[in-house]
Amino acid sequence: MSVDRLQHLILEKRNPSVAGLDPRLEYVPEDIRERCLREYGKTLRGAAEAVYAFNCGLIDALAEVVPAVKVQSAFYERLGVPGVDVLERTLRRAREYGLYVIGDMKRGDVGSTAAAYSDAYLGGVEVEGIFCEPFPCDALTVNAYLGSDGLKPFLQTCLERERCIFALVKTSNPSSGEIQDRELPDGPVYAAVGRLLEELGAGHEGAYGFTPLGAVAGATHPAQLAHIRELMPHTFLLIPGYGAQGGRAEDVAAAFTPEGHGGIVNSSRGIICAWKKVGGDYQLAARAAAVAMQEDLTRFVKL
Amino acid sequence: MSVDRLQHLILEKRNPSVAGLDPRLEYVPEDIRERCLREYGKTLRGAAEAVYAFNCGLIDALAEVVPAVKVQSAFYERLGVPGVDVLERTLRRAREYGLYVIGDMKRGDVGSTAAAYSDAYLGGVEVEGIFCEPFPCDALTVNAYLGSDGLKPFLQTCLERERCIFALVKTSNPSSGEIQDRELPDGPVYAAVGRLLEELGAGHEGAYGFTPLGAVAGATHPAQLAHIRELMPHTFLLIPGYGAQGGRAEDVAAAFTPEGHGGIVNSSRGIICAWKKVGGDYQLAARAAAVAMQEDLTRFVKL
Repeated sequence: MSVDRLQHLILEKRNPSVAGLDPRLEYVPEDIRERCLREYGKTLRGAAEAVYAFNCGLIDALAEVVPAVKVQSAFYERLGVPGVDVLERTLRRAREYGLYVIGDMKRGDVGSTAAAYSDAYLGGVEVEGIFCEPFPCDALTVNAYLGSDGLKPFLQTCLERERCIFALVKTSNPSSGEIQDRELPDGPVYAAVGRLLEELGAGHEGAYGFTPLGAVAGATHPAQLAHIRELMPHTFLLIPGYGAQGGRAEDVAAAFTPEGHGGIVNSSRGIICAWKKVGGDYQLAARAAAVAMQEDLTRFVKL
Repeated sequence: MSVDRLQHLILEKRNPSVAGLDPRLEYVPEDIRERCLREYGKTLRGAAEAVYAFNCGLIDALAEVVPAVKVQSAFYERLGVPGVDVLERTLRRAREYGLYVIGDMKRGDVGSTAAAYSDAYLGGVEVEGIFCEPFPCDALTVNAYLGSDGLKPFLQTCLERERCIFALVKTSNPSSGEIQDRELPDGPVYAAVGRLLEELGAGHEGAYGFTPLGAVAGATHPAQLAHIRELMPHTFLLIPGYGAQGGRAEDVAAAFTPEGHGGIVNSSRGIICAWKKVGGDYQLAARAAAVAMQEDLTRFVKL
């Protein structure tokens, strides 16, 4: 099962963290940027190729340290069709390295449309009998505001093709409480989303007790994170907000089981922009930042 | 203002409807499909080019009848990079015809990432001083579960560049109530999202009284639709769920102001698949279906 593979990779590398490949053009070191803009033009294509070259270097530098990478689709879509093209190539590249690949697309729609998104990122498409995987991810982030019939098509693909989703429960941004923390008679809105995920996933627990329906819960809201772990014992958590957004290792500890299972913490800028802070080679800087994050997390998360 | 332009186009064409270009390969007439698969291969590229040829024919057939088209991103993403490529070309094509173009992407993320989505679909990107519009839409559907700091970047682009968003308030699918109808002390969750939109948009009303922050409210839930119109007097409504999903013209009437303003009703399959029902030329069938929908709606919506 996909979520088992993720947990297994985390244990194997003793690292409950995921590197976020969320590259803006200004994060790309100048020599790569200049070379690509010269070769491909001062265009979206040039910018996208610079991002891809940067990504390849990052994947190469990080593959031994981290179990997983997360790609934030927005930064690729922002570069138009060439951006989406390098998104797809980045997904394939990361999988070649054996990394667990999380597509951070936050897709969500009504039933038949959710199925189309599920085909695009987790499943596949048949064209006249020939099977294609449009954007091959191991897991996808999903918005659950539409309720269960927006989630079921994803669950079906997850079960058929060994995939996983992470649905937004409690996001890391400052205003997340405006909707998510509003109090219903039986608890906050985010808990209602959480219960929905637990209900839908019930009976599909894997070797470590988690279902293919994971959840996103931000490191920036430690109290809610602990509440979510308690409320959703069968749900694997993807935890953004560590580092640049303010979440600390001690804040995320409560998201894990006593065995140190069930969570993975994301850092994007903290890793991919490390070279801007410390200078020197961006690959060495990214790797050092990833190792420092691993050490920081494992002080609190005992694997 | 963008929402003014939409209202103006609706009044000009006396048609409060939008044609949804949500093409699956099986919706494309066989001659187009065969020609494209022969020319481009039995690949995602071949499938995508068939969809594009179909879209071009539909836009040509519908441009005089409807004020707007809506593209459902999932069906393009499902065809991989070639699908996203024809999505972009479809957007440009529709704009050449003067149609108001709604990107149904349902994007939503934390602040800086929401800004990247806003750049991608409503704004633009500068590459070394050269301005590009990656996916040019007049309006974008957005998921508001993340609260105001996921919406503000879109609002800013809307104000700067004459664009509009439609945030999910009450979706048309059967299970939408699971989260959206849950009762908070001051009303259902969807109303809390609605109030957030009204608050953020306040002071930015255009000539018809609507702000650039529109809302999605399904035709399949008429009681809530009437409630939303009352609760959100400054919000333009994008109304899916008419036709194939079961919503009727009399159901959507309550979404409009007494002047017949403030709403646009989507139909996708009912228009683009009309040829499958009535036979014959797909362009004529689509146009006839769009005219029939216009007549049906304007029996209840007095423009």
